[in-house]
Amino acid sequence: MAKAQPAASIFEQDLDRTAANTAPLTPITYLRRAAGVFPDKTAVIHGDLRLSYRDLYARACRLASALAKHGIRRGDTVTILAPNTPAMLEAHYGVPMAGAVLNALNTRLDPATIAFILDHGESKVLLCDRELAATARLALAQTKAKPLVIDIEDALAPEGESIGAMSYEALLAEGDPTADTGEPAVEWQSLSLLYTSGTTGNPKGCVYSHRGAYLNAFGNMITFGLRTDSVYLWTLPMFHCNGWTFTWAVTAACGTHVCLRKVEPAPVYDAIARHGVTHMCGAPVVLTMLAHAPDEAKTPFAQTVEIATGGAAPPSAVIEAMEANGFRVTHLYGLTETYGPAAVCAWQESWESLDDRQRTEKMARQGVRYVTLDGAKVGAPADLAEMPADGTTMGEIMLRGNTVMKGYYKNPAATAEAFRGGWLHTGDLAVRHEDGYMEVKDRSKDVIISGGENISSLEVEEALYRHPKVLEAAVVARLDPKWGETPCAFITARPGTTISEAEITDYCREVLAGFKVPRTVVFGPLPKTSTGKIQKFVLREQAKTL
Amino acid sequence: MAKAQPAASIFEQDLDRTAANTAPLTPITYLRRAAGVFPDKTAVIHGDLRLSYRDLYARACRLASALAKHGIRRGDTVTILAPNTPAMLEAHYGVPMAGAVLNALNTRLDPATIAFILDHGESKVLLCDRELAATARLALAQTKAKPLVIDIEDALAPEGESIGAMSYEALLAEGDPTADTGEPAVEWQSLSLLYTSGTTGNPKGCVYSHRGAYLNAFGNMITFGLRTDSVYLWTLPMFHCNGWTFTWAVTAACGTHVCLRKVEPAPVYDAIARHGVTHMCGAPVVLTMLAHAPDEAKTPFAQTVEIATGGAAPPSAVIEAMEANGFRVTHLYGLTETYGPAAVCAWQESWESLDDRQRTEKMARQGVRYVTLDGAKVGAPADLAEMPADGTTMGEIMLRGNTVMKGYYKNPAATAEAFRGGWLHTGDLAVRHEDGYMEVKDRSKDVIISGGENISSLEVEEALYRHPKVLEAAVVARLDPKWGETPCAFITARPGTTISEAEITDYCREVLAGFKVPRTVVFGPLPKTSTGKIQKFVLREQAKTL
Repeated sequence: MAKAQPAASIFEQDLDRTAANTAPLTPITYLRRAAGVFPDKTAVIHGDLRLSYRDLYARACRLASALAKHGIRRGDTVTILAPNTPAMLEAHYGVPMAGAVLNALNTRLDPATIAFILDHGESKVLLCDRELAATARLALAQTKAKPLVIDIEDALAPEGESIGAMSYEALLAEGDPTADTGEPAVEWQSLSLLYTSGTTGNPKGCVYSHRGAYLNAFGNMITFGLRTDSVYLWTLPMFHCNGWTFTWAVTAACGTHVCLRKVEPAPVYDAIARHGVTHMCGAPVVLTMLAHAPDEAKTPFAQTVEIATGGAAPPSAVIEAMEANGFRVTHLYGLTETYGPAAVCAWQESWESLDDRQRTEKMARQGVRYVTLDGAKVGAPADLAEMPADGTTMGEIMLRGNTVMKGYYKNPAATAEAFRGGWLHTGDLAVRHEDGYMEVKDRSKDVIISGGENISSLEVEEALYRHPKVLEAAVVARLDPKWGETPCAFITARPGTTISEAEITDYCREVLAGFKVPRTVVFGPLPKTSTGKIQKFVLREQAKTL
Repeated sequence: MAKAQPAASIFEQDLDRTAANTAPLTPITYLRRAAGVFPDKTAVIHGDLRLSYRDLYARACRLASALAKHGIRRGDTVTILAPNTPAMLEAHYGVPMAGAVLNALNTRLDPATIAFILDHGESKVLLCDRELAATARLALAQTKAKPLVIDIEDALAPEGESIGAMSYEALLAEGDPTADTGEPAVEWQSLSLLYTSGTTGNPKGCVYSHRGAYLNAFGNMITFGLRTDSVYLWTLPMFHCNGWTFTWAVTAACGTHVCLRKVEPAPVYDAIARHGVTHMCGAPVVLTMLAHAPDEAKTPFAQTVEIATGGAAPPSAVIEAMEANGFRVTHLYGLTETYGPAAVCAWQESWESLDDRQRTEKMARQGVRYVTLDGAKVGAPADLAEMPADGTTMGEIMLRGNTVMKGYYKNPAATAEAFRGGWLHTGDLAVRHEDGYMEVKDRSKDVIISGGENISSLEVEEALYRHPKVLEAAVVARLDPKWGETPCAFITARPGTTISEAEITDYCREVLAGFKVPRTVVFGPLPKTSTGKIQKFVLREQAKTL
């Protein structure tokens, strides 16, 4: 849409866009079609609750029309604070059907951050699960924005406060189950507002368009092999990039959504076995948790479950452990700025002949662009020149295409900075291998510079994960008067094992260059975000105090 | 894109389309990505020839840049007259990469029609397979247009004339294998020009956009389950709606194209077995031919082959016969005006409990809209009102969305007529069943009106196909002084059987209402188009002379 079309060609005359040959791309169409083609099919499972696609569509229409009755107009923000429940899924359709923008909040945010987002996002409505009502109440006490608060009374939620003007079901009762609004007006219209967790300063709000969400959901459907008979378990939070757009992709495939309030091994394995789950997603820590769950939590299942992971590279030892448990792992790569997944470590036939270690190392790379993304390169931060595909020259991963966000909300400076030169700058430092696959070596800020040498914290972590007594590991820089920085390792031992610092450093000396061996080793649980990412900034702070 | 976006919302400020977050949707991107991700994978099989995706991309770049050297510019028409060969497939990428419009010709057209199209389409280049050179020479003798003629010298072609300025390989040798032009400038740019066969008057040229082709190929990939390990056999002509856009869909999935110059049972079965074919398409007559091929032509194969059919409803007896031969049949519905498939008879789990007859009758319906189409309805021709889903009320199938053509080339009157009221009028008369599935009862002109009663020629044909001695059947109206019209049946008997008129009418009286029984029965081969559609207009003419 960027360049102008010359008027000369007869092929562009009397061949205009009309209502017959153009419709805005929008993920809402997926629900409209699923309800038309498979009205009686189970769309949503939540405990004993079953919603058919007819039900889901009717409830989304009710939500859209009820919001309109309460004054919500195109471009208004509707915030939701909820775990992976039917109401959360319904909001992914009903809110955009009202022309409004869905602002899903990370359920682990503190009240002050929620307050910042409600104000910055100019929220008009807050839909709040009762488990999170106490946090929301503290947040609302600090806001200038006074959104209409709606209590989501999920039957499976623990007891909680009522803080709203009415319940979610009462709101839906005001709506019309047949009132589809025909939104959006145009496909570039804003659909979603998602604040990045941001390790410094205030969070930034990524804005998604209907067009981008439609296309990324399509890319997920193709990449992950979703079909009408797919059963998708919601182990990935829906607030995280709208569940990497699987909130829409599963419906596009006319598959079944299985909701889940909390990710714990026993209920996950139980759901897999009970509902015949075929697909799920999760951060590597979720994989680690499932692979190393106690045997009594592992309800056996017959199918192979496709599990997509991302957010950080899955250590190859974790891939191997998951395979032994009946899963097939696909590694996706992306950011909140790219609607979640933008790249996939696409499987190559030639890997079949590799041994497990070599194969899972290939699979742990970030890979190649999604079919729905226009471009992905490893470029020089300065002039954006593409780096050689030699497996060693480091550059920054840069992405562009229809599945890159519209920009940061009310932050044109940050948007311009992120998009400089016509590419989204990810901040991830990577190499491109000879086979064209990208591999992240570090976040810019995760590189450890010791005696002038760059050390990839990921390389050290990958080595640590291979130690039989290591459950999880994270490595950060620690200031050092002589070397500038040295690697500092934080390690969680496997349950039932004990491990010493000497054991770790002796092992590392065997498998790593001397300057890469951690000079400091700390044992204990690792701090994590709600999406399971290890919070390295917390560890960096901790390293300063050692 | 039709309605204006109000400027008020803060969500539409400082969040513009830029090079980072917008790229034109185009099927060219599928080849760019396949060559990047699977450069060494076999993209094309043709006899002993193998082209990798690296090769295919390089040859497309060569074609695009060589065409540019010969003066081809954005919006110029490049015509191709060729069977399903590598050159034909390459043209589907190289021509649009030059910004030009691909005009693929039906290989069975007569010289006068080809001459009309070359002139009307203002063709600048004609790529011609040597088997069709004699026809092309006769056509060129009648044209005002004097395109640059290029001889395609396919190694598997029979001997033929040289009529061109140079060979296709010599043209490619002039090109640059690394010169990707970055076309198109915008996604609405014209990509393809396809003339409908048209039973009366001059053919009309349907114009496709890059956007529409990208999306319909995506729809095919999802609907037909194409994956990286798919092997697609080219039994459907690529000139037919660009092979229903599978020319692009197979590449989008990074699957393998198996070319085939001629559709005959033995080479088709041989290719299925030899190359592990997983997917193919063809008109119902192709299915009939394959199902009833002599045993010695049927090389056994182990896999189940997905076969999509359309153009006419597959008689349920043909579906059953194909299943017995190792195929799984999917019924698609569409028109040249809709990039080929726009609807699919999507499988419902509840059909599994039906007996073969009931099940295949369900499967023979036209079904529901593609996920990539915005709307499909059975409407009243007058006011476009939607007909009740009662299985009996007849209306016209109307379609709308991004996979409807831009319009008819240089024919705004025909475009406006086809798009009146914001819907594409298909001319197909249908009912919508209670389950939402559409079923074509007839083309407007195929209804037989006898004594004031409407008779569906399809219903009579469906009954005839169930007779064990009937291979193919077509029913048209014959003028009758008393009844106005009566049904006239044209029948081809199965090889090795003989059948009498009395046998047919006795049988029909058992299974059809009396007024629907053919009053006239003619035995012999049926006239067909190059895409395998039975030419009812020929039979109607013949019926007049009986």
